[in-house]
Amino acid sequence: MEPFDVHILGCGSAKPTHKHFPTCQVVNIRGKLMMIDCGEAAQMQFARQKLNMNRLGHLFISHNHGDHVFGLPGLISTMALLGRTSEFHIYGPQQIEEYLNVIMKIYCEGIDYKVIFHSVRTREHYLLFEDKSIEVWSIPLEHRIPCCGYLFREKPSLPHIRREMIDAFNIPVSQINNIKAGASWTLDDGTVIPHEQLTYPAEKPRSYAYCSDTIYLPQLKEILKGTTLLFHEATYPHEMLARATETRHTTALQAATLARDAEVHQLCIGHYSGRIKDEDVHLAEAKSVFQNTILAQERLVIPL
Amino acid sequence: MEPFDVHILGCGSAKPTHKHFPTCQVVNIRGKLMMIDCGEAAQMQFARQKLNMNRLGHLFISHNHGDHVFGLPGLISTMALLGRTSEFHIYGPQQIEEYLNVIMKIYCEGIDYKVIFHSVRTREHYLLFEDKSIEVWSIPLEHRIPCCGYLFREKPSLPHIRREMIDAFNIPVSQINNIKAGASWTLDDGTVIPHEQLTYPAEKPRSYAYCSDTIYLPQLKEILKGTTLLFHEATYPHEMLARATETRHTTALQAATLARDAEVHQLCIGHYSGRIKDEDVHLAEAKSVFQNTILAQERLVIPL
Repeated sequence: MEPFDVHILGCGSAKPTHKHFPTCQVVNIRGKLMMIDCGEAAQMQFARQKLNMNRLGHLFISHNHGDHVFGLPGLISTMALLGRTSEFHIYGPQQIEEYLNVIMKIYCEGIDYKVIFHSVRTREHYLLFEDKSIEVWSIPLEHRIPCCGYLFREKPSLPHIRREMIDAFNIPVSQINNIKAGASWTLDDGTVIPHEQLTYPAEKPRSYAYCSDTIYLPQLKEILKGTTLLFHEATYPHEMLARATETRHTTALQAATLARDAEVHQLCIGHYSGRIKDEDVHLAEAKSVFQNTILAQERLVIPL
Repeated sequence: MEPFDVHILGCGSAKPTHKHFPTCQVVNIRGKLMMIDCGEAAQMQFARQKLNMNRLGHLFISHNHGDHVFGLPGLISTMALLGRTSEFHIYGPQQIEEYLNVIMKIYCEGIDYKVIFHSVRTREHYLLFEDKSIEVWSIPLEHRIPCCGYLFREKPSLPHIRREMIDAFNIPVSQINNIKAGASWTLDDGTVIPHEQLTYPAEKPRSYAYCSDTIYLPQLKEILKGTTLLFHEATYPHEMLARATETRHTTALQAATLARDAEVHQLCIGHYSGRIKDEDVHLAEAKSVFQNTILAQERLVIPL
């Protein structure tokens, strides 16, 4: 199966700790790398993970808080130093553009590649990007400033050919793409071998949903329905619900409730408050509602 | 003796490597912390070193290249989150102010402390800051843009009292400060005990000079004469002299030559090019000219 992995490069929140870097993730979809958020030191974590910057074409930013964007000038400068010439696309709420423009003006004048900003409407769920195999959709979130999540989805693949049928019926190679696309095969005596007998179904398309930072939004279960992996912030344990609500964040219990209600396959929680000493409390709390939960940590790679 | 330590938080150059963070150092002079340069992830490295942000009052920036300033927004934001109320002073070439103003406007509006910028004249060697025990001076450097180094110097201390003399001559405690300040002591019979007999000299004032980034400037030996510890960039080995000259950097051999000519006590080299695989080549080269040389590395603490 083609790779579809999520690399956690940073999963802390705004206050620094000894343990965590601020938010940054990289999604590897079939060898194509897409970054999500760009907290300070994103480029160092990227290098440590031995990821290839030439394969990084897109960055999706959730919102314009420092712990999600302060890695941006370093990333853009370093790609220029490494001789990049291909376009780099940044998606995010409109507010990010002012900072980006200043970085480009002061530190990146005359670089050899284009940085293209795409403003995202954070209150809508809509298709932002697609190519022949994947789609990226926005997920409306609610934080103290405009904020959205992102849904990465494989497009359905064509079914696989049953090698033994091709051999048995002597089907020429030139017909294989037609059969994959849905055609049947007619023998010389007129017998029709149906498409279903010549193929077996493709794997179910995989999907990754990223939700950070936000208050608990139960209605997201519709958008997230059946997602393979959901990353959801869980800044606080549920005993700090008042603080979570006030700062527009989610508790571990709430994140797990959403995962359960959306019937996702796996939940990964992170964006831990700097006040939290023991993240196992988050994990136990989430697992009490949704068993297939893991804790984000730096350098973790989650295959879908 | 009061502490005077240099913490290396980052000693790489602009291109990221697996091993190095971009430039940042912290000088601990008698419990007061002063940061030098503020490359990306400075605040994380600061936290990992278990340094106390409340003791950090000053930042001295050499020049406005990204690998020396991209940690600035994170540092300023985090100090605000930690509840800082005391002023924070930033010294550096005028060019830095534009970036600083944008950061303050977009990400730090309404924070509870003042960030005060002091523009440094990079072509002059002059006193920038002093308090009762230390001085900080600028060191003119030459790089592709205006750039300066910094010299941290203890002021001479008063001599130490010889406890046994005080006891022998029954000198009252009230007179000790006078004696430290240079007074002699007259016995009842008129005999004068000279100051020198009552005291022993204070330790020689220590000094730390920071020179990065710059072409080799032999004339600096005057300013650096007798410095306790010199940090000097050594971006390239000497076989890459042409590249060093072109990019306005120094080779390890040149840095060591300056250390020898300035008769410093110890040399620390760093700011390694991302092209360098083996820093031991730098070390061997520098030691061939100046034996008391060490390699900078992240989290190294050098006591003076």
